[in-house]
Amino acid sequence: MFGSPPEGEIWSGDDAAVVAAPAGRMLFTIDTLIEEIDFDLAYAKPEDVGWKAVAVNVSDIAAMGGRPAHAVTALWLPSSTSLVAAEGISRGVAECCKAFSVSNVGGDVSTASQIGIAVAMTGGAHVEPVRRSGARPGDLLGVTGQLGGAAAGLAALQAGRGADFPDAVRRQLRPQPRADEGGALAGAGVTAMVDISDGLASDLGHLTEASGTGCDVDVHALPVDPSVGAVAEVVGRAVLDMAVIGGEDFELLFAVPPDRLDAVQDALSGTQTPVSIIGRFTDAETGIAGRSLKEWKERGWEHLRAR
Amino acid sequence: MFGSPPEGEIWSGDDAAVVAAPAGRMLFTIDTLIEEIDFDLAYAKPEDVGWKAVAVNVSDIAAMGGRPAHAVTALWLPSSTSLVAAEGISRGVAECCKAFSVSNVGGDVSTASQIGIAVAMTGGAHVEPVRRSGARPGDLLGVTGQLGGAAAGLAALQAGRGADFPDAVRRQLRPQPRADEGGALAGAGVTAMVDISDGLASDLGHLTEASGTGCDVDVHALPVDPSVGAVAEVVGRAVLDMAVIGGEDFELLFAVPPDRLDAVQDALSGTQTPVSIIGRFTDAETGIAGRSLKEWKERGWEHLRAR
Repeated sequence: MFGSPPEGEIWSGDDAAVVAAPAGRMLFTIDTLIEEIDFDLAYAKPEDVGWKAVAVNVSDIAAMGGRPAHAVTALWLPSSTSLVAAEGISRGVAECCKAFSVSNVGGDVSTASQIGIAVAMTGGAHVEPVRRSGARPGDLLGVTGQLGGAAAGLAALQAGRGADFPDAVRRQLRPQPRADEGGALAGAGVTAMVDISDGLASDLGHLTEASGTGCDVDVHALPVDPSVGAVAEVVGRAVLDMAVIGGEDFELLFAVPPDRLDAVQDALSGTQTPVSIIGRFTDAETGIAGRSLKEWKERGWEHLRAR
Repeated sequence: MFGSPPEGEIWSGDDAAVVAAPAGRMLFTIDTLIEEIDFDLAYAKPEDVGWKAVAVNVSDIAAMGGRPAHAVTALWLPSSTSLVAAEGISRGVAECCKAFSVSNVGGDVSTASQIGIAVAMTGGAHVEPVRRSGARPGDLLGVTGQLGGAAAGLAALQAGRGADFPDAVRRQLRPQPRADEGGALAGAGVTAMVDISDGLASDLGHLTEASGTGCDVDVHALPVDPSVGAVAEVVGRAVLDMAVIGGEDFELLFAVPPDRLDAVQDALSGTQTPVSIIGRFTDAETGIAGRSLKEWKERGWEHLRAR
């Protein structure tokens, strides 16, 4: 399912995998999905769970400007879990690894009271890694793609209306991390970057706190996912809530000095991925539509609280 | 708690850590401990859990002949878990990382119905990695240290007699992986190696299956941990059960051609770690005291079954 190792490498089946190390500096991250907290098999297929567990790590590597290389996977399952479900999760891991040229080189399966999966991933840092802390007042705030689609997909699924909103559902269940865009943005000279996993309000807070800046966001400039309006109407929620505090879009949020904006747009022109400039870093407070990030976040997606 | 990164590295606090990659080939592994399956906070302190989660990975890296380098840690906890317990687990991770010169460079904390921890670890492969598959008929079967102590410790704790057997309890709760011995054995020319995590019977099976050999084990040569006899008497179990099917000793089990035995003993002389020769690889079946590994294992420690 996970392919064969190249000459000189050893993948699963021994005490540890042996792989070619990335040259120079290496990126290294881990992320976990837990049943009932991060996914619900009432609406996610096992394959979706496996896909997403890999995708969130690809997104973290991309947000540093890197390219993913190798993954190891820990899966834990109640003993009542069907073999079909267990294999489905692994198949989703394999699909996402293939889609983003990651080699899954090892794993571990345990028994637990609840399904969960942790994926650890290494990546190569071909350009200088981009931290969260490099934004300066005057830099522009940019974002790839569209916002709110993943939250809309979740809301549609939870309302039993997933079949009516396939694009939004796909954004929720099969996120497409910006693997190529991260390196392109890093090469074009962005000064800070984060992926949007917790939601715009939370992740912008990560950038401004690490950078010691504020930021003014122009709410009218937000690239709202085209699915969001219709879903919001059906489920009775505000469009802006989905775009600002809905998480899991896995778009890249970055700071770019105005004189490098052309370079950013050139760098992304090959990817067909739109970039929107949605604000400007300042030395004052951070606000979105006149409300502080704290106000947004208190209403927002909480990683540590069950859905 | 986890120290500070050297110049040019970035540890926790960004989307991914940035570290110096090992030169050339790299080892990569992941292992998970789950509450009620792999530990019980009725007798393990949170610090013990964190220690062991790191130690089992150090042992896997050592069993390839490598040296551990960097770790990332995923921890999941019920929201009812006390901050003291959560911090204790992290402190145990930090203690074990410090003891074995591993840098814990990142982590992830989630909510779950049950406590669990997954640690992924990279390592350097300074000598040719030692696989499980290289044993040949005529090679001797060697093992470091003593067997059965960790199982005795667990049995004593479960019987409420832990305080009477501190050495055995320490082997169960604070395993000491053979970090230095792995590389020394690899350098001395062992032909196959595995760490004893599931128990001698299971892990010998991993060596013989991967190598396509059999093995005769001399049960009188087994280096039984000095704690085992007294604990076995107290809990009413057989000494040999603890030494043969008791897991978690994290000793190294290896194959060595007879003409390299001197080199092995020289290589380990600096570590004060005893080596015992407990059998010989054959082209026939594998047996311990006239019973097949299957017979042993069916009575044995089962990783996928709760204690």
